[in-house]
Amino acid sequence: MALNKTLRPGLIQLRVLDLDKTLSFYKDILGLNEVGRTADGRVMLKGYDEFDHHSVTLRLADSAGFDSAAFKVDSHETLEQIRSAAQAFGYAVDEVPPNTDQPGFGKRYGFKLCTGHRLEVYCDVEPARQRPMIKNPDLWGDEPPRGMRVQRLDHFLLFGPGISEAERFCTEVLGMFVPEICNTPDGKRLATWITSSNKPHDLAFVEYPEPGKIHHIGFFLQDWNDVGAAADLIGKNRLKLDIGPTRHAITRGMTIYFWEPSGNRIETYAGGYTAYPDNPQRVWDTDSLGRGLFYYSGELIDSFLQIVT
Amino acid sequence: MALNKTLRPGLIQLRVLDLDKTLSFYKDILGLNEVGRTADGRVMLKGYDEFDHHSVTLRLADSAGFDSAAFKVDSHETLEQIRSAAQAFGYAVDEVPPNTDQPGFGKRYGFKLCTGHRLEVYCDVEPARQRPMIKNPDLWGDEPPRGMRVQRLDHFLLFGPGISEAERFCTEVLGMFVPEICNTPDGKRLATWITSSNKPHDLAFVEYPEPGKIHHIGFFLQDWNDVGAAADLIGKNRLKLDIGPTRHAITRGMTIYFWEPSGNRIETYAGGYTAYPDNPQRVWDTDSLGRGLFYYSGELIDSFLQIVT
Amino acid sequence: MALNKTLRPGLIQLRVLDLDKTLSFYKDILGLNEVGRTADGRVMLKGYDEFDHHSVTLRLADSAGFDSAAFKVDSHETLEQIRSAAQAFGYAVDEVPPNTDQPGFGKRYGFKLCTGHRLEVYCDVEPARQRPMIKNPDLWGDEPPRGMRVQRLDHFLLFGPGISEAERFCTEVLGMFVPEICNTPDGKRLATWITSSNKPHDLAFVEYPEPGKIHHIGFFLQDWNDVGAAADLIGKNRLKLDIGPTRHAITRGMTIYFWEPSGNRIETYAGGYTAYPDNPQRVWDTDSLGRGLFYYSGELIDSFLQIVT
Amino acid sequence: MALNKTLRPGLIQLRVLDLDKTLSFYKDILGLNEVGRTADGRVMLKGYDEFDHHSVTLRLADSAGFDSAAFKVDSHETLEQIRSAAQAFGYAVDEVPPNTDQPGFGKRYGFKLCTGHRLEVYCDVEPARQRPMIKNPDLWGDEPPRGMRVQRLDHFLLFGPGISEAERFCTEVLGMFVPEICNTPDGKRLATWITSSNKPHDLAFVEYPEPGKIHHIGFFLQDWNDVGAAADLIGKNRLKLDIGPTRHAITRGMTIYFWEPSGNRIETYAGGYTAYPDNPQRVWDTDSLGRGLFYYSGELIDSFLQIVT
Repeated sequence: MALNKTLRPGLIQLRVLDLDKTLSFYKDILGLNEVGRTADGRVMLKGYDEFDHHSVTLRLADSAGFDSAAFKVDSHETLEQIRSAAQAFGYAVDEVPPNTDQPGFGKRYGFKLCTGHRLEVYCDVEPARQRPMIKNPDLWGDEPPRGMRVQRLDHFLLFGPGISEAERFCTEVLGMFVPEICNTPDGKRLATWITSSNKPHDLAFVEYPEPGKIHHIGFFLQDWNDVGAAADLIGKNRLKLDIGPTRHAITRGMTIYFWEPSGNRIETYAGGYTAYPDNPQRVWDTDSLGRGLFYYSGELIDSFLQIVT
Repeated sequence: MALNKTLRPGLIQLRVLDLDKTLSFYKDILGLNEVGRTADGRVMLKGYDEFDHHSVTLRLADSAGFDSAAFKVDSHETLEQIRSAAQAFGYAVDEVPPNTDQPGFGKRYGFKLCTGHRLEVYCDVEPARQRPMIKNPDLWGDEPPRGMRVQRLDHFLLFGPGISEAERFCTEVLGMFVPEICNTPDGKRLATWITSSNKPHDLAFVEYPEPGKIHHIGFFLQDWNDVGAAADLIGKNRLKLDIGPTRHAITRGMTIYFWEPSGNRIETYAGGYTAYPDNPQRVWDTDSLGRGLFYYSGELIDSFLQIVT
Repeated sequence: MALNKTLRPGLIQLRVLDLDKTLSFYKDILGLNEVGRTADGRVMLKGYDEFDHHSVTLRLADSAGFDSAAFKVDSHETLEQIRSAAQAFGYAVDEVPPNTDQPGFGKRYGFKLCTGHRLEVYCDVEPARQRPMIKNPDLWGDEPPRGMRVQRLDHFLLFGPGISEAERFCTEVLGMFVPEICNTPDGKRLATWITSSNKPHDLAFVEYPEPGKIHHIGFFLQDWNDVGAAADLIGKNRLKLDIGPTRHAITRGMTIYFWEPSGNRIETYAGGYTAYPDNPQRVWDTDSLGRGLFYYSGELIDSFLQIVT
Repeated sequence: MALNKTLRPGLIQLRVLDLDKTLSFYKDILGLNEVGRTADGRVMLKGYDEFDHHSVTLRLADSAGFDSAAFKVDSHETLEQIRSAAQAFGYAVDEVPPNTDQPGFGKRYGFKLCTGHRLEVYCDVEPARQRPMIKNPDLWGDEPPRGMRVQRLDHFLLFGPGISEAERFCTEVLGMFVPEICNTPDGKRLATWITSSNKPHDLAFVEYPEPGKIHHIGFFLQDWNDVGAAADLIGKNRLKLDIGPTRHAITRGMTIYFWEPSGNRIETYAGGYTAYPDNPQRVWDTDSLGRGLFYYSGELIDSFLQIVT
């Protein structure tokens, strides 16, 4: 199959501070559907256009942030290949049995990157109860998209130390490719955008001294119009805006960054070029990064660079 | 690499009736860039956002229509695998030496499908002189997008007999997958949408008694807004509209169909879902095909069904 | 005041066949708010962005169609001037006392045009309970816009005999102006678009042998994106589409025409030029009317010309 | 006529620092057409969708800023009424003979507001050579819109002392109305948005100690999509962005603010509600002004408040 091995980021678990208030945001404003709760009270959510059991898990905690993320792969064979390759890469691999902490998910292998983030891979997951239609399908099923009408989990940006190694892990072990990078003047990797398919990024890393941090979780919108409509809801609901609506030259996505009630940064993202592994890699200099991130102003802003969870 | 083997439709050669008038359409209205001319007078064109040498070749002929299309694959190894697999599939394979009829292109293997269409594969192609920027890239380079601002060749729809076999060839030999199909009441394949990546289709087939026909060539636009702006240009330039702006439930693309001056049908297409091979296949009944093709009216139109070149 | 005399079409009463089903359309899909019911069971509705008591009244009847429409004027003085001018024009004027058949509305003067349509004028109307915010206003109030998110009644197109006289009534008696007309080859008025402000039309007439007919009621959407989103709802809800999304060269509006469940044609309309009385009148020939109405196809369609209620 | 007396801002003259570079911006990026030059070297420009001779005049000077603006009125009678009313208001009125400093314009009456700004009124102006089509009109004429595709001069925002008096002058003398205001906590007018028609503003004032300043000149775009496309051009051309794309709650316009090469702030503006004089006035508190101006962030920015020319 031409699109194979690692397919996409299929699951992310986030820590939140105020479950009710935050959940109301994810459901009523962002537009995710609540799938159910785990035995220990975590909430499972998914986009209306996602087929699998759930894609976002929220866990009540003392601090907001990133617990882990998992990539769906195409087969058990790939799963085992990744386990072996991860071990050969020098990473310890643990195994999470099916249907334990993430209901509906089959066996997962997990590893901790040098950046301090736990990533996992899995190939089995139960279908969601509410799925996109597949028999003479409408654009959506019984219930129309709500709020910002996000379609699905798109990507996430992680901050931590040693991203060159993390990038290498993603390419060598997970089989992803790197459409776009940013290097410091002395040639060190400052940021890297990594994908397993035509999406310009499935995940990204920024070099940062503190491990295990997340900058934002990106959800996919149809287009620039829905970006504007999402911004209308940000204003109406007095959400705290970081920046946008604007456009990245990096990925070319049209975007807004803002914070959900627990302080995790959310990106509502649309567009982006069609990435191919045979296209040349786009390369950014540090002093052009402002233009790369915020194509309209060309200027970095402190909050975007400094606030992570 | 997670995205590999067959990458995308990278080249199509069309027959046109009036080279100057038709070329003016492709350049000034559709917005392709002229790359140059072959020794025998064919015109090579490309979208402003394509990296490779050219993607569309126009050949002056007595009738409009489809000459051939070629898919880019990721490596020489894949190229040879496809040659072997095509032969094992029972198809004769010929070889086109590098830089002959398609300047800039490396060796191509070609085969004639039972539907009467010549498809080819290649892995080497020279970079275009005018490429998207890659060093601190802007959204576009020196010259702003023109006319309808099409970004790239997206897909094409072929009409011919025996599309089940053609579909099987695309999956078994080219390694593509089939996100969406339409069957007749007696279970025969009426139409099939086939892709090698996240795009909902790279090519499609409709069962049709006459071989070698093409229904349309699809070019990619940024979004629904550019679909509207393209329609403004259709009106202004008195191009012959077939249908649109409308939306497919199939692929979910937003679209217009119209004819270029030689009578080849052009689609200006945006959107579409993010296809994955592990998502269930969408299945259409023949009597829902009207809704599937034209989600707003729900009705088929004769011109769309009957006019091919 | 620079914008004065006749201000806008503020009320239309339509006949519908199946009150529950049709009301569900107006509320849940079109997105109007139900204001309440009259003592005799008619339903009053308004757009979320309208300030006055209600703008649409639905009356259960044996046939769909137009009962009457009323224009808001700026003052009692204008009201009396229009009464006198209408009488001087040769029309009988009747008076509807305040708060009778249209709750919330002050005194109305009514007259029957030669086209068979009852028009009225009024200057007093109670404020709606649900109004747009005016103190540090958000884009909308407590309840977000629903369904197609229509903002307000925009205009209506009436079919009947003698539209030259109707046009003259609108300009001479109501003080409106005529940004755009269509004449037959022998110089007779075939269609006329009439406004009292910057909107390209508040009402329009098409010459037609049968009196008292209505072609469509137009509701205002934010833009082309909302036109597309409305079309998505047309498809999802299996509403009967007449034509669109498309664009008029006449008025330049972006538009869809479709039928509500009782068979009245609805237009969801956005855009349009900024009309001024000192701009030259746009003039259409009959044989260009296809292009004027449907700029993208350039072709008239039978249903649009022949179906009225 | 229902839309009468003062019609719209029809002309503005700005001071610029570098005529060639600035003119290139207004023509190639903003998309105005050059109409010609005056005998003393000023440049006359107009939007592609404007009927009158020209709407913007650029004058080379030592400092950027506002020279004067002129409103078109509907008749000689109105012109004389305004002259009398202005004198009765206590303002000196001077007369500019036809076709002198502004080629194509008839007689103008001018007055200096207490805010330090020269405003003028006129009723005669020659038609532009390049006008919107009026006979079976396309959306635009021979030449397609360029660059940001601004359609016309929309409004301007002036800074100076005594804006309550200026507002009173606009309503009492020019017959305009005031859809929206902002007051300080002690009830003084801080800002006022004034219109003569359905547009939410034709001009606006902000209280400011220094007289004769201009904050921005607003040009009209079709919609949010063109706002995004304009932002793409801001990025590509490295124009200095002030803020946007964003949305005002005030006027509801979708907008970008940036500086042209001479340092005059430009707004590319779309949308806005349909203003009517009978609608209640929207009122803003000073401490909500951030939300009113920038609905998405809710926060004022220093550059927007402090930089005027």
